[in-house]
Amino acid sequence: MGRRFNLNLRHILWRAATYYPRKEIVSVNSWGVVERLSYSELHTRVRRLAGALRGSLNLGPGDRVASMCWNTARHLELHFAVPLSEMALHTVNLRFSAEQVVSSVNDAGDRVVFADPDQLPLLERIASELKTVKAVVLTEDSGKVEGLETLRLEDLLSESEEADLIDVDEEKPAAICFTTGTTGQPKGVIYTHRGIFLRAMASCMSDTYAVSERDVMLHVVPLYHISSWFMPYAATLVGSKQVLPGPHPSVERIVRLILDEGVTVSDGVPTIWLNVLGYAKERGITRLGELRRIVVGGSAVPEALIRGFAELGVEVIQAWGMTETYDSAVATYVKSHLRSLPEDEQVRLRVKQGLPFPGIEVDAVDESGKRVPWDGVTPGELIIRGAWIVDGYFNNEEATKTSFTGEWFRTGDVVTIDPEGYIELVDRLKDLIRSGGEWISSIAVENAIMSHPAVKEAAVFAVPHEKWGERPVAVVALKEGARASKEELLDFIKDRFPKYWLPDEVLFVEEVPKTSVGKFDKKLLRATYRDLLRRSSGDAGQA
Amino acid sequence: MGRRFNLNLRHILWRAATYYPRKEIVSVNSWGVVERLSYSELHTRVRRLAGALRGSLNLGPGDRVASMCWNTARHLELHFAVPLSEMALHTVNLRFSAEQVVSSVNDAGDRVVFADPDQLPLLERIASELKTVKAVVLTEDSGKVEGLETLRLEDLLSESEEADLIDVDEEKPAAICFTTGTTGQPKGVIYTHRGIFLRAMASCMSDTYAVSERDVMLHVVPLYHISSWFMPYAATLVGSKQVLPGPHPSVERIVRLILDEGVTVSDGVPTIWLNVLGYAKERGITRLGELRRIVVGGSAVPEALIRGFAELGVEVIQAWGMTETYDSAVATYVKSHLRSLPEDEQVRLRVKQGLPFPGIEVDAVDESGKRVPWDGVTPGELIIRGAWIVDGYFNNEEATKTSFTGEWFRTGDVVTIDPEGYIELVDRLKDLIRSGGEWISSIAVENAIMSHPAVKEAAVFAVPHEKWGERPVAVVALKEGARASKEELLDFIKDRFPKYWLPDEVLFVEEVPKTSVGKFDKKLLRATYRDLLRRSSGDAGQA
Repeated sequence: MGRRFNLNLRHILWRAATYYPRKEIVSVNSWGVVERLSYSELHTRVRRLAGALRGSLNLGPGDRVASMCWNTARHLELHFAVPLSEMALHTVNLRFSAEQVVSSVNDAGDRVVFADPDQLPLLERIASELKTVKAVVLTEDSGKVEGLETLRLEDLLSESEEADLIDVDEEKPAAICFTTGTTGQPKGVIYTHRGIFLRAMASCMSDTYAVSERDVMLHVVPLYHISSWFMPYAATLVGSKQVLPGPHPSVERIVRLILDEGVTVSDGVPTIWLNVLGYAKERGITRLGELRRIVVGGSAVPEALIRGFAELGVEVIQAWGMTETYDSAVATYVKSHLRSLPEDEQVRLRVKQGLPFPGIEVDAVDESGKRVPWDGVTPGELIIRGAWIVDGYFNNEEATKTSFTGEWFRTGDVVTIDPEGYIELVDRLKDLIRSGGEWISSIAVENAIMSHPAVKEAAVFAVPHEKWGERPVAVVALKEGARASKEELLDFIKDRFPKYWLPDEVLFVEEVPKTSVGKFDKKLLRATYRDLLRRSSGDAGQA
Repeated sequence: MGRRFNLNLRHILWRAATYYPRKEIVSVNSWGVVERLSYSELHTRVRRLAGALRGSLNLGPGDRVASMCWNTARHLELHFAVPLSEMALHTVNLRFSAEQVVSSVNDAGDRVVFADPDQLPLLERIASELKTVKAVVLTEDSGKVEGLETLRLEDLLSESEEADLIDVDEEKPAAICFTTGTTGQPKGVIYTHRGIFLRAMASCMSDTYAVSERDVMLHVVPLYHISSWFMPYAATLVGSKQVLPGPHPSVERIVRLILDEGVTVSDGVPTIWLNVLGYAKERGITRLGELRRIVVGGSAVPEALIRGFAELGVEVIQAWGMTETYDSAVATYVKSHLRSLPEDEQVRLRVKQGLPFPGIEVDAVDESGKRVPWDGVTPGELIIRGAWIVDGYFNNEEATKTSFTGEWFRTGDVVTIDPEGYIELVDRLKDLIRSGGEWISSIAVENAIMSHPAVKEAAVFAVPHEKWGERPVAVVALKEGARASKEELLDFIKDRFPKYWLPDEVLFVEEVPKTSVGKFDKKLLRATYRDLLRRSSGDAGQA
């Protein structure tokens, strides 16, 4: 016995190349040119790239390879060639600061960096600080990074032999992704072949994303962000046509690709799809070609997005996940006995984060670690375990220790769970505001402010207060040309909350500061406005 | 690290009980009475049954428990309680001969037998030969098996405490099933928690059986036969309503349950569904309620079944598998670029066995183990590996050795694989007829004879021949009241094959003898007619 079949990326690529050799991967390059290659060609190029990694680049099992790339076929090739050479692909987040890039590349110990043309200036700037990198491979361009050996990808490929893809042990790392976390330097998360395989398989189940060979999938989520939520592996496993929109994809390009390539399913953060919706409305578009569903996550999905896309014949599937959960672990699924509810109540369900995937288990606990009731009211920290949850941080015993309770990962998200099991996000644990011994949800208040027609963005955060401990403060960016006063906004939301939930201050800004993954940077806001309420006695405080 | 989540049956039952506590399991008992229990009640009964196994019955980890049961909720409870007590459930094939039952129970070393009422006479007869069995538990009846301690299930449950379901290591056995094989005694096959979990997950993928919570699944395949192809685990994983048709289900009962319970998906061997089709046609039924798809396997699916059910709005998904492949490993899937083919060509695709599931890899090899081309013409033995293929036989080193080539399981099925990867069964390796150095497919010839309107069944098999080595002989059972001669039948098929493929003899019988799983018993036929052609010189031989 012991002939165990490894759940690894080799099988995923083998299946597409064997059964769908002529299916297309459509990719936009740095010059905006649309390229096409088949799964058969992808397979050949991956084998050749694996040959280059092990040959010219002289890398071996266990090595780490960094990518600083957009969503292109070149980046997809790295997603197979590196793991199938028994190495791990470190997808560097292109939104990271130079300091974060240096820290994560040094932490991962990357030997080689594959980079898109627009990354060269940054690489030049940080070259001398990269301790383990011995070469840079340019994906598209010729050029030179001062201080580092610089190679061209196509040169490398043309001089390399096709290598056999390794039947890697399923527990071995395939990828590394760094999460900014809440304090200090980025923390590395390791993804195994097994975890990616199970995550890909789960995405093809009827009651999750139902990814099928018949689908044409547009990857809007960056490959540098949890490998585009691992959707490309699901698409390859079943042989879907894939569309990669290239660097800095604009709304116009996204819509154009959806229409031109017959895209049926896509994904991304709410902001992008709100922009697509706005674009469609402005132009009187009533159908987005063949598009039938979009997986939306990264932050809470507004009701307007669900209703707006329903009018275009597109279902919005809300997904919840974290870097530590291989992204998607929870998603919208309306149970059959709830499908007869009035539409408004169904939308109410769909704005919740949803139910865990098959293979994932969740619960919510209070500060002492005791389970809270699933009553839809009592908040608790979401804890999670399952078939694709990481089991610790790379090189970081301390963070690993504080992030797990036994076999459960502590998400740091405060949620309620209703009697049907639907999870609803209340707030990030660290963003909850503790005022006079009571909790205030920053997310609930900012969502209420954002529903005012004049408001573009609003973030609510805690500011230290002598009497109440903490009090909420809002920063608000108004829409172009729109006007609203502090009083008007507070009046607009006052009936929805206890009086003590209303922010003590509303500060108007041009734009709310954001983190590298596009979320409101509340850490920065808290630091910036730390002394705001010390100057006053806070007479608008808790009632 | 090392907090690995086990892919086991605990998660499957937990999910249904947690998210679909009120969903129904409908079960027909031995008296034809329809019983209903919810997943929540199932969960409680399973915990109580686990308590009984470990308490009153005094069993422990590693023990084996036999079931001699039909498709009922009681049998489903055993499918969770036994594996989640870290024991293996041996589902005894109710079609086995007394000798085969004794051999398999002794081989498995079963400690306790759970039995439905109609199995008592058999148990009485063999009680003295069962070496390891210390008790019989009657699922429904009160009664006594002479020579064995006899208990009633409901008594056991009422006196037991609910036990915790064990988070079993995924590599541990969950079930044992015996396959009759081709020679000698039944061989035991072990199913692990991991294999069952992956098989269940795969059955829910869009491009396979797409099992969903919205489905109502009728289990026609016996639970004693590869645990009803593991479909109950898929249904439980996603929370489908399940319908178990009880002992000796008739066509009338199957149709009645489909209509009464809103069944959307079912499964079974071709014979049963041909009978359902005949029943529907006789009564002018044009829709079978909500039924939309049936998974059909066990033997090749006739075109008439596919076309007949298409008229009822039901898709036939052909499945190929063996005891050693957790049943389904290959199934019908029409690739998107082939969906524009004319209907006849699509039906032609659907009578092929299909494409491997995601997670499964196949190939075909010649006698020297060399890969044969995927040209749709060259036959080779199907070899297979993947996420739910067994890695050997229980207690049988010799059979394990001869059945594997490295990590590939040798199926013993001769197939062709076409350029698109579709597998088509030519014959069982052992049923191929070698005449004058050329191969003859027994299946092809018998299918041709069976397409004659007078013929009910036909089996073709090899008989030793002095000159040609082997020659084909047919046994034919005619439909009631129908008539046909040897000459007429041979004339009917002669244009479809080379002359030397035509059987030397056609013997008319009342019924073709069958094995315990309902296939033609060619081993018996070969033995019975071994000397048939020795008496003549075989002048109808090879041209």
